[in-house]
Amino acid sequence: MRLGYCNRLEMQALISVFDKKGVVEFAKVLASKGFNVISTGGTFKSLQESGMKVTAVQDVTKFPEILGGRVKTLHPSIHGALLARPDQPSHVEDLTRHQIARIGLVAVNLYPFVETVSRADTTLEEALENIDIGGHTLIRAASKNFEHVVIVVDPTDYQWIAQRLEGGGGLESITLGERKKLALKAFKHACAYDSAVANYLEFGSTPAGVETTQFPEVLHPVFEKKQSLRYGENPHQKAALYQMVGSKMGGVASGEKLHGPDLSYNNLLDGDAALRVIREFGDTACCVIKHTNPCGLAVHSDQAEAYRRAFAGDSKSAYGGILGFNRTLTEAAALALKGVFYELIIAPDYEEGALKILRAKEKLRVLKVPEAGTQQAFDTPDIRTIGGGLLLQQPNPIILGSVDEATKSWKVVTKIAPTKEQMADLLFAWRVSKHVKSNAIVVSKDQQIVAIGAGQPNRIQSLNICRRVGGDKVAGSVLASDAFFPFADSIDAAQEAGIGCIVQPGGSIRDQEVIDAADKFGIPMVFTGNRNFLH
Amino acid sequence: MRLGYCNRLEMQALISVFDKKGVVEFAKVLASKGFNVISTGGTFKSLQESGMKVTAVQDVTKFPEILGGRVKTLHPSIHGALLARPDQPSHVEDLTRHQIARIGLVAVNLYPFVETVSRADTTLEEALENIDIGGHTLIRAASKNFEHVVIVVDPTDYQWIAQRLEGGGGLESITLGERKKLALKAFKHACAYDSAVANYLEFGSTPAGVETTQFPEVLHPVFEKKQSLRYGENPHQKAALYQMVGSKMGGVASGEKLHGPDLSYNNLLDGDAALRVIREFGDTACCVIKHTNPCGLAVHSDQAEAYRRAFAGDSKSAYGGILGFNRTLTEAAALALKGVFYELIIAPDYEEGALKILRAKEKLRVLKVPEAGTQQAFDTPDIRTIGGGLLLQQPNPIILGSVDEATKSWKVVTKIAPTKEQMADLLFAWRVSKHVKSNAIVVSKDQQIVAIGAGQPNRIQSLNICRRVGGDKVAGSVLASDAFFPFADSIDAAQEAGIGCIVQPGGSIRDQEVIDAADKFGIPMVFTGNRNFLH
Repeated sequence: MRLGYCNRLEMQALISVFDKKGVVEFAKVLASKGFNVISTGGTFKSLQESGMKVTAVQDVTKFPEILGGRVKTLHPSIHGALLARPDQPSHVEDLTRHQIARIGLVAVNLYPFVETVSRADTTLEEALENIDIGGHTLIRAASKNFEHVVIVVDPTDYQWIAQRLEGGGGLESITLGERKKLALKAFKHACAYDSAVANYLEFGSTPAGVETTQFPEVLHPVFEKKQSLRYGENPHQKAALYQMVGSKMGGVASGEKLHGPDLSYNNLLDGDAALRVIREFGDTACCVIKHTNPCGLAVHSDQAEAYRRAFAGDSKSAYGGILGFNRTLTEAAALALKGVFYELIIAPDYEEGALKILRAKEKLRVLKVPEAGTQQAFDTPDIRTIGGGLLLQQPNPIILGSVDEATKSWKVVTKIAPTKEQMADLLFAWRVSKHVKSNAIVVSKDQQIVAIGAGQPNRIQSLNICRRVGGDKVAGSVLASDAFFPFADSIDAAQEAGIGCIVQPGGSIRDQEVIDAADKFGIPMVFTGNRNFLH
Repeated sequence: MRLGYCNRLEMQALISVFDKKGVVEFAKVLASKGFNVISTGGTFKSLQESGMKVTAVQDVTKFPEILGGRVKTLHPSIHGALLARPDQPSHVEDLTRHQIARIGLVAVNLYPFVETVSRADTTLEEALENIDIGGHTLIRAASKNFEHVVIVVDPTDYQWIAQRLEGGGGLESITLGERKKLALKAFKHACAYDSAVANYLEFGSTPAGVETTQFPEVLHPVFEKKQSLRYGENPHQKAALYQMVGSKMGGVASGEKLHGPDLSYNNLLDGDAALRVIREFGDTACCVIKHTNPCGLAVHSDQAEAYRRAFAGDSKSAYGGILGFNRTLTEAAALALKGVFYELIIAPDYEEGALKILRAKEKLRVLKVPEAGTQQAFDTPDIRTIGGGLLLQQPNPIILGSVDEATKSWKVVTKIAPTKEQMADLLFAWRVSKHVKSNAIVVSKDQQIVAIGAGQPNRIQSLNICRRVGGDKVAGSVLASDAFFPFADSIDAAQEAGIGCIVQPGGSIRDQEVIDAADKFGIPMVFTGNRNFLH
């Protein structure tokens, strides 16, 4: 009999929402199914004005709202109703003794705190007044008891829940799994709210400012699974690809596959590296990526020639590589790829004739990424997991502008200055060096990679790799270093190899020795002032 | 007169804590200063048993605890007391009318939800029972009203607050700025708690580890900011360090800094690489990391000797590197470091004498990471952002066990098999190769790195780097390759260098050619069957 009593009383719903979208229609469905709808504040008014029968929360608590609305629902009659478990006899006894009727559904959402405090003229008093206590507690209490209470914080859930109820199955037609998902959503809603409050208390009234939103106290990025991957970096590691919810720039994660097998984890990682480096260049360019480092890259007005020059950068390593283009792939360029196996090609778009040629290659993946053609940085922050945590950083921005614009802040530190042509080549090498794992040395000539020295524990070792890979072509080329030279020995090695010009950040305590060495050899050298480590 | 009434009543404190450290002493100070101390549950019992006068929360609410304690403090008499503003006449009127006495100090902290759900046998029911509603709401209500309520969630704050009160200034001696900081701390506490609940509901009993839920449709990892970093990989990139809420293994993210400047972004990244590789080894080991790759690593029963051998792996590059140890650092090992500048040293612990030596080095960061001594993989999944999304993968697990156990599934593919000693060296090199950027070649001898070829676009280039870096020491060493050799040319090069034995995954379509070449030269070769790419 007691359980019967409880089951009847479960047909109560508590509704109190900031976002009133669809709430009247939803409440009406509940009322039509026999629910006693309890409400408060503005929601109560809206529901009452719609002509439906609605119970004020004070009529349940028998206690008036106090402190101008600060205390309305923080009452045992409400929280007993939300937290009771009908499968616990002692709970049922408590409800009966105190004449508390269970509540089976709660629809609550909170005023977005961020919006209050992002108004420039918000005072501390206004901000504090807007911290929701009662609604937040309703959400958490109902979520804790999701086995017996349906919690709805997202108005887009009204429709399917209403449909279930109209189907006649009662609240029981919402499965336990669905209730758990609703509770999860609710806890996230509650948690995001407090995260915003903590941010406000710590940083003040500018949560819209880059500083605060980029590095919040609690970071909970939301990603949707785009696809399960066959495996990760290696076959014994499971993996999946996710897209960041709300990200503007799609990148490789949202590319459209026009042909070929599914992209692998390593394809996506290398594809991302290809996109990042190719987007540095406003002019027609092509890059070849191996193990996330560029091994070939060239800029040329003729796309097919740009490819040939990129390939020539390290024709031995290009096999099985990833190709990136920043212009619609022409048929001529597609033809030029003949005879070399690539895993993946990325371009902003493809000529019909090009696509026909590429589709004949069974194992080649053809990806259309419109952003490949834009000179824009990704808006996704760099996230890198380390044991037990993660490192979050702003991405290293793309270098925009003409040679004059892009090198405006560079400083010639040697007696001899680079020629105009050398400056263009230095900028090319510098742009590439940003995308080569540290320690990185890039040797280039005529807007084309001659050799790359990547990922070495000391800088001269990277330079020596360039000398061996580039061979005779190194003479007369320019050289970029992603960080300063700690010693003058690298300048000696550059001179021996016939390097014509050098760009580096500067900033070593031995800068003067390094400059003196360059002056001794008559090698023009430029300091950029900023470093480009990449790991 | 009304305000006078209220001011008197402010001398109430509500105390309800999970962490009971120092709470009795604190409550006694409050009582001695004339506070009416209200309490509940286990805290009430502790205070009462200490002999002090304490008021049960039911005597304030005039309402019993119901639902087995689920509803105790969710009552207008408590929340009116916390949320009222004495500077608002209408609030004061409400309090008077309902005979509610204001509460001026709240000391509440929550049972760590993570600990409940990280026990392997925790049921969903137990987890849900442990979601705190009442205490969480007390914290948030008091924090919202921090202008008029002092909220204490951290037991380490008891002492200074008690001192202020004993100084005779009353609660007013805690400045508004201090109250705000306490409120911020409290919101973070509340927020972290809900993060852990959301993680649990999404990922199950171990936040990151459960196979079936590791790749959910919507990924919602929750991280708490541990510290803002001066900058990211480069000075023009802002960055911060976060810890995963609910992660069991802390790793470098939760290391305890015993000495030196703040850790930089690159320190943390390199430190993580050091931890990952050092934890592969069950015996006493030391590693040197440069730009995330190991450049030296050795196993030796004498720790100081292990360091000397690691240093010898690439003594040219070690300068400015990161050191990792998997045993308490001895004074002898600390002495052995003399004369070389390192950025960071990580060990599970430090002998007092070792610490004294290290503390003399002004710029060295000394980090204690107990997990450095355990042969356990991190439980944090590998997250890697790509433009617009991220790649999530299982970490590459640590290779456990003795030489016989760890190489059980390996297959000797050549006519000659490695000796027992060679097998031990092959396993050493293979373990290291997992932590070297691809393409990776590791040459080692006597459990010591001879040379590393890292991050090259083709495998023979990595091998050639080893030959040049290792010089004469390469002869008679063993070689590990993180992936298969695509051609037999690498075996030719290995033979020329005098390599004595080879381990690699196998799996190339030209495996037979590669095996034939090894047989021709009489070089024993073993296939592991699994690849170890790392990017």
